[in-house]
Parts: sequence; structure tokens; C-alpha cells
Amino acid sequence: MSIAWLEEIKWDKDGLVPAIAQETGTGKVLMMAWMNRESLELSVKEGRAIYWSRSRGKLWRKGEESGHVQTIKDIRLDCDNDVVLLEVEQIGGIACHTGRHNCFYKQLQNKQWVEVEPVIKNPDEIYK
Amino acid sequence: MSIAWLEEIKWDKDGLVPAIAQETGTGKVLMMAWMNRESLELSVKEGRAIYWSRSRGKLWRKGEESGHVQTIKDIRLDCDNDVVLLEVEQIGGIACHTGRHNCFYKQLQNKQWVEVEPVIKNPDEIYK
Repeated sequence: MSIAWLEEIKWDKDGLVPAIAQETGTGKVLMMAWMNRESLELSVKEGRAIYWSRSRGKLWRKGEESGHVQTIKDIRLDCDNDVVLLEVEQIGGIACHTGRHNCFYKQLQNKQWVEVEPVIKNPDEIYK
Repeated sequence: MSIAWLEEIKWDKDGLVPAIAQETGTGKVLMMAWMNRESLELSVKEGRAIYWSRSRGKLWRKGEESGHVQTIKDIRLDCDNDVVLLEVEQIGGIACHTGRHNCFYKQLQNKQWVEVEPVIKNPDEIYK
């Protein structure tokens, strides 16, 4: 299998690129995580978002515990070849481990971060 | 001035966070760049996106040469406090230095990156 498309990406010194997940339809930015070569290659192969967990140091098949899989509709690369944008369908409508629709739920208001998005499902019920 | 909101952010070991710029109205993800404390503080103060250019090692007032300023409408922080999402108005309708509306113009098609977005303005005419 050709991997030229993978070699075109400018991986950082840790072999990673930021991957932004945007929801198809709503256009909401759900989250940003990191990918290495293997995770991006697997994402394409399996048609679902597979990230590299920097904290756990291993592949992170998004939804593996929660069921909140991200099905990939489109993959884009930016002008500098160092950021990936995924268009995804968010299964379950919850991308964030806090049980919210997306991870960007803190809004800067008058020099304070204020939580402005509701918790849809209690994380205790998601991660049993 | 309180800087507690800046201290809540988990800056990486280089003192940076990824900042995603999303266009107000269209919801298009325009670009991702990096910010340090100073650039984010200035962005809030001036109401326009000011990034940290890693390649040039200095503040990058988006639009300083091109006129393609990004006016900030909203600032969000993610669950891990390590990614910022800006909602911006893209002055001139061009975010990318290639003269395209946004930077994510390469689409993965059958294991090849294919340019799928038009150049709106010749970069030679933007950067004189």
C-alpha cells in the first residue's frame, strides 16, 4: 500500500500532528486530539477516528469505552501539512469525556472561563 | 489585571497552545495556529487574533501584512484546558496565505491529497 500521503505530512518531533474533529451537519468543532502515523493510517482503514493518547502513550480508538465512536466522512490537511481536520459523525452525540456534546464548553467571559454547555449524560453512566 | 484565566490554561513545554480559528456564520474551520500567553492576552485586549509564529519566533498579528485580520467573536477552552477555539470574522474572506478561504484545502482521496478549494486571490497580490 502506498504511504506517500502519510509521508507528506509534517509530523512533529514526537511524530504527531494535531487532529481537529468537526461534526458533519452542525459544523461544531467537537475536540482536538493528536495522531501519529499508525493512528491516522488506521483511521483511514477503519473509517473511524483513532487518536494517539499522549497521556496513556497508546492508540486511542475514540469510543472504545464510551461507545461514542466518530465515523469519518472527510479528511483534510492544511497548507503547512501539519494539521489534520476530520469531518465526523459523532455517534451518541457526545464527544467529550465530561458527557458534553463537545469539548469546548468553557467560554471566556470578562476574564473568566464559564461553563456554557450542558452535560448530556453523566460520565459515571458512560464509563462503567 | 487578573491573569487567573491565563494561568488556568495548560501551556505546553514551549509555553504554547493550539488555537483553532472557526469562521462565524459559516462554521468553517479556517486554520490552526499557536498562541503563547502574550499573544492570547493581546488577542483578548485587541479583539483580534494574534498568534505566536513558531517559525519566525515572534508575535504574528494575523492580517498585519495581508489585511486579512480575524476579529474575535468568542473564545472557548476545551475540557483539558490545552486547546483554544476562536470564533472569528475573517476580514477579506481569506484566511490562508495561499489566497484561499481556509487552510484545509487538501482532501484525502484514494490515498492522495487533492487540492479542492479555489484560490480566491493571488498571493502575489496579497503580499506586496
